[in-house]
Parts: sequence; C-alpha cells; structure tokens
Amino acid sequence: MGTPQHTSVGIIGGGPAGLLLARLLHRSGIDCVVLETRDRAYVEHRQRAGILEQGTVDVLRACGAGERMDREGLVHDGIELRYDRRAHRLDFPALTGGRRVMVYAQTELVKDLIELQLGSGAPLLFEAQAVAVEGADTDRPLVRYTHQGREHTLTCEYVVGCDGFHGVTRDAIPDRARRTYERDYPYSWLGVLADVPPSCDELIYAHSDRGFALFSMRTPTVSRLYLQVPNGTDPADWPDDRIWDELAARSAIDAPWKLERGPLTAKSVLPMRSCVVEPMRYGRVLLAGDAAHIVPPTGAKGLNLAVADVTVLARALAQRYETGATELLDTYSDTCLRRVWRAEHFSYFMTTTLHTEQDQSPFETRLQLAQLDRLAASRHASAELAENYTGLPLE
Amino acid sequence: MGTPQHTSVGIIGGGPAGLLLARLLHRSGIDCVVLETRDRAYVEHRQRAGILEQGTVDVLRACGAGERMDREGLVHDGIELRYDRRAHRLDFPALTGGRRVMVYAQTELVKDLIELQLGSGAPLLFEAQAVAVEGADTDRPLVRYTHQGREHTLTCEYVVGCDGFHGVTRDAIPDRARRTYERDYPYSWLGVLADVPPSCDELIYAHSDRGFALFSMRTPTVSRLYLQVPNGTDPADWPDDRIWDELAARSAIDAPWKLERGPLTAKSVLPMRSCVVEPMRYGRVLLAGDAAHIVPPTGAKGLNLAVADVTVLARALAQRYETGATELLDTYSDTCLRRVWRAEHFSYFMTTTLHTEQDQSPFETRLQLAQLDRLAASRHASAELAENYTGLPLE
Repeated sequence: MGTPQHTSVGIIGGGPAGLLLARLLHRSGIDCVVLETRDRAYVEHRQRAGILEQGTVDVLRACGAGERMDREGLVHDGIELRYDRRAHRLDFPALTGGRRVMVYAQTELVKDLIELQLGSGAPLLFEAQAVAVEGADTDRPLVRYTHQGREHTLTCEYVVGCDGFHGVTRDAIPDRARRTYERDYPYSWLGVLADVPPSCDELIYAHSDRGFALFSMRTPTVSRLYLQVPNGTDPADWPDDRIWDELAARSAIDAPWKLERGPLTAKSVLPMRSCVVEPMRYGRVLLAGDAAHIVPPTGAKGLNLAVADVTVLARALAQRYETGATELLDTYSDTCLRRVWRAEHFSYFMTTTLHTEQDQSPFETRLQLAQLDRLAASRHASAELAENYTGLPLE
Repeated sequence: MGTPQHTSVGIIGGGPAGLLLARLLHRSGIDCVVLETRDRAYVEHRQRAGILEQGTVDVLRACGAGERMDREGLVHDGIELRYDRRAHRLDFPALTGGRRVMVYAQTELVKDLIELQLGSGAPLLFEAQAVAVEGADTDRPLVRYTHQGREHTLTCEYVVGCDGFHGVTRDAIPDRARRTYERDYPYSWLGVLADVPPSCDELIYAHSDRGFALFSMRTPTVSRLYLQVPNGTDPADWPDDRIWDELAARSAIDAPWKLERGPLTAKSVLPMRSCVVEPMRYGRVLLAGDAAHIVPPTGAKGLNLAVADVTVLARALAQRYETGATELLDTYSDTCLRRVWRAEHFSYFMTTTLHTEQDQSPFETRLQLAQLDRLAASRHASAELAENYTGLPLE
C-alpha cells in the first residue's frame, strides 16, 4: 500500500471510534484513510472497556462487525449492587422493556474491525503519527503526519479526530472557539486481569467503606477486576494477595459468596476524569469519542459514546456525499453533545454514588446508602439507572 | 388550669409535631401534656413550611384536623422547573397514580391544632420552658421546666421531644449512645411574604446562574418567595426593589411570564442544613421532627417528616397502652430513620441540583442542566422526583 496523499475523510486514530467510522463510511461508498500512531500489535492488545450497550451491539451487527461478538460475547441481563453487606440485582430487560448489554472486550472489537478494514482494502496506516491538522475552516483541511520516518501530508474534504484525549486534532479548533469542561476525581482504579473464571455471572458494583470494587469479566475464563485506590498509586505496592484480600473484603455480604482467586496477568492504574470539549465540529474538522469527551469508567459509557458519535457522523457524511446537504453535519455537534452530557451525568452519578472519598463525612456515606437503598426499592429509580446503563436510543 | 405534675406522655414542644401527637394520643385515650416555651401568639405566627404531602393531608383529615385545611388550602397537581430559560412542568397525579400536595401554611395548621387541643381540655402550657429531661433509662422519666417564674417537675411514663433542632430533649440521650450526621450548605434562603396574588398557579423551582429562586404562595392573595443568598446575608441589604428584580432575573424564560410585584410584609434569612440524630429513641425518651432531623427546605420535607414521625409514634404508644406490647416502640427509631434518610437524600438532591455555588465549575453547572434536562425528558426520572415530592406512603 502506498502512502495516500488525498482522501475524502481523513480519520486520525485507529481505535474503535476511527475503525468503526471507517467501516460505516466504507459501506456508504465514501473513501477514507485511517492513521494510527501505534503498531497493530499494540492496538490489538491495549486493555480498555468491555461493556457494549444494546444500541452499540445493534450498530455493530448492522455493519457486519458483530459476527464474532455474537459468537463469543456474553449477553448480560443485569448487574448486582452491593452495599451495607447486602446484594441487590437490577434486572435490565424487566426494567427497560427488553434492553440488555453485551460483555465483549474493546480489544477484541478492535481486532474484528481491523480485519474488516484490511479485508476491504481500505487504507489503514499503523505507525502513522498525526502531527497537526490544519485548515479546519477551509474546504481542504489537511493532516501532517509522519510514517516510516518521513513526513507526509494528507489532504481531505473532512478530517475526523478519533485520536483520544491526548490527540492533536482538537488543537485544530482555535482556542477562542473551544470550551473545555472538566473534573478530576480524588481516586483511581487499579484494574487487573486474572486467569480465573469469574465468581459471578454478571457484573458486581460494590460500595464499601474501604472503597469501591467492580467484579467483571472478559471471557468465561478471564476475570476483570477493579479496586478504587488513591491517585498516584503504584501497582507495585499491590501484590496479588493484597488485591484478592481487598476484593474479598469489599464484596463481603451476609450471604454465601466466594471469590475465586487465580493468577493475575496484568495490573494497571486508571485515572478517573470527566471532560467535555465543545463544539465537536469546527469547519471541516470533527471530533468523535475520547477526543471530545472523557467519562469515568463507572458507568461503562466511554466506548459506547464513541460508537454513538461515529454512527451519527457516518449518517451525516452519507447525507453530505449522497445529496450534498450538510444539515446533519451542521447539527452533528449538538446532536452528540446532548447524549454526551446525559452520559457525563450518569457516569458522575454512578461514580459518586459508589466511591467513597477518604475524607468524606459520615453524613455523605449515609446519603450514598440511602441512594442505594432507593435503587433497590423503587422501580422508577432502578429503571432510571437501567435505561442509562443499557443505553438511551440514538436520536 | 393547674400545673400538671404527672402524665403518661410528656410532650416537649408545641409546634406541629407536638400538637399533632397530642391530638393523635387524645383520640387514643392516652393522656399527655404539651409544654411550649413561647406564648400562643408567637407560636401562631412563626413562618415555616407550607407544603403538605398527600400522606400528611390524609393523617390530618383522619384525626379531625383537616377541616379548615380542606376549605382554605390549595391543592397542587404539580410543580414547574425552570432552567436555561425554559420551563417544564411535572404533573404529579399522572406520574404517581393520583398523588397531590396541599399548600397550607404550617402556621395555619398550628392554629387549628391549638384550637383542637384547648377545645379538648387537654393540657397545653405556653411559656413553659423545658430545662432538662432526666431518667430516660428509668420507668419514670421526668421533665424539669419553668412556668410563670417557677420551677416545676413533670413525671411521665414517656417523654417525647418535639422541641426542634435547638431543643433540650436530645441531651437526655447520653453522648456515647448518640450519633449525629450533619452537613451545612454554603448558601441560605432569603424568604419574603408579599401582599400580592402569586404570579403562578403552582410552585416554580428556578435554577439560574444567579442562584436558585422559589416562587410559592400562602393563599390566593399572599405570595411566598425565596432567593438563594450567601450565608451571613443581612435582609437589610435587600430593599424590596432589589428582591423583585432578582426574582424576575432568576425566573426569566423565553416565553411570556410576568412577575407581579407587591408590598413585602416580612423578610428573613433561613440557613440550609442537613442533620440526623440517631437513635430517635433512648429508653423512654423519644425524638420526633426537627429535634431528630433537619433538612434543607428545597424538598419541602421538614414538616412532613415530623408528621410521619408522630404518626408512627402515636401508633406505637397506642399499642403500648392498649396491649402492653412495646414492639412498635422498639422499632420506632428504625422505622422513622428509613424514611428520614430517604428524605435527607431527596432534600440534598433537590438542593444541590437547583442551587449554584459561587465557586462551582462550568462542568458542575452543565451536570445540573443535564440532570434537569433528564427530569424533563424521562418518565422514570420525573416520576422518581414526583413520588418523593408528594411523599412516600407510611410503612
């Protein structure tokens, strides 16, 4: 494959947002180029999210990217909340009229999308590092990037930044036109992978005086587990036994429950951050996914927001290339931001309801428990959580 | 009336909690004495809450205290939320299966209850200041109080503290047995009464960058209005025109709306505080209403919690005097505290969703607007608010 010099849609970033957008555009007959900084092996192995909303599953199936997901993914009909030594299950289909989620690791989805992209012959360049995006307010924006030690320029009709929170595309929007909203949290997650079958059939979200814990899985034989830890925690301070002991302590209930232990194969610390950049479109440059917004992972919304963004965007670009109309492109930012702010609020709600701050007052702890009690007791409160968790319909 | 020396139930405090408890006990044939620090005129004119939950209305009617309330009170079928220059109405009966609220000033309810109490010949002493409650863990607790310049002792079988947040009864529970949960808020309410018909048929809760405002009423010709102000505000710094201008600015929407102005007849500053004291029973001393818990007024829960407490307590005392069983007395604290913490959470939710802090970040403001948008868009989210506002059923 030669180094492309021009394309209709230049996509910066070969994560799930960029790759899915390329897939959707390919099916609409719109040519595009995907530039990814890292090499293929790296991209295919970075650990990220793993919960797909009902709408995300629908989009992946509709574009032919759902085959392995449907074969290997785990359909989940609910989650369990633990607090005050009690467990309460939320039944998603019963609360939402049939909506579910799918457990399928982002890293697997990325492999599927890469295979589809390369199989279609559409350009996907690894180790192609975007350096700058220029000309957002012209008809011919361009991407300067390096590939195999050389500098290149890709001229485009549209440039889409799917390059994550640290990407360069956002800088193509001038400061005067851009507004950033953000919040950091006073805790992080220590995330581990364990070669042991999960001890639970569904995810467990555990509130505890010791801090939050999340019990999840990647496959029927691989557990994915998280512990709330202070910011700045070094994973080296957490030997395996300490992690298992802490997971057990935070999930203790007054009912039979045994946490199966196994070898840990990965440990990493994830910061918790909320961030929204507005607008998500400036001239002919558009942002999607983490490039425009970050959520703390508690609500499992990050990947799903990215999928929603590029689904809206693919429709808008299809309208543009099929009819010349830019109506959907013009409303892209507003359409996405409504959903983004809903997810930001939900993620904040889940995070602050379930995590305990080191200096929080006993009153605040009791408020959290009152909220959790209400989620267990009230159909409206639990349905509100279930609707947000399984995902609101695309507009 | 002589000065009573002994009674079955000594009730400290002649506010709505104490007076209603006396009414309920009287109907169960249980004798009691109510001691109130202030004189009758003071008690009948102190401005307090004005929104009665459906369950509160039901209790008042059932004990014969609802006649004037039903004649003069205003039944409200909803509230309006204002934010971002928009208005959204919540329809309570539609969201809750028929539950409503009643606007009837606490001060009027107190007048009704005093008249019933004095009419029944049951003892109600004004200017009787309780100094101490002793012997909580004995069979014969007593109240030391002063009346007409002399010191007296009232021996009781049970003592109920309905003496508010600053009352003395709470001190009868030893420190080692008592736990206090509290939170102060960095803002207060400036509340005014105005001799002008309300500009709205129902209450308006207005979120604004300038701070929260609440538009309420006492009668069809008297408005009750509130402005969020910084703690420590002196009402003298708020001349009438400034108050009306600020109320108008905070309620502005992109639709026809005119705030009618009139003479202000009262101005006062109300602090915002959350507080819960546990347990609500120690031996033969019981706490009810503000003596045990305070909520910020945003959710209109204070008076209603007091009514719920004494309703539960009257049933428990009726069981005790009719059958000798103390089962309901033994569970009184736990039963009430479940409802109290629900109301604490709801009041906190309403308060923090609608008030803006002076140093809050743009991200936090956007989260509030996202929450308000959700309340307007989602049946589950709005029904959750409506259920809490109209009041959860007594257990």
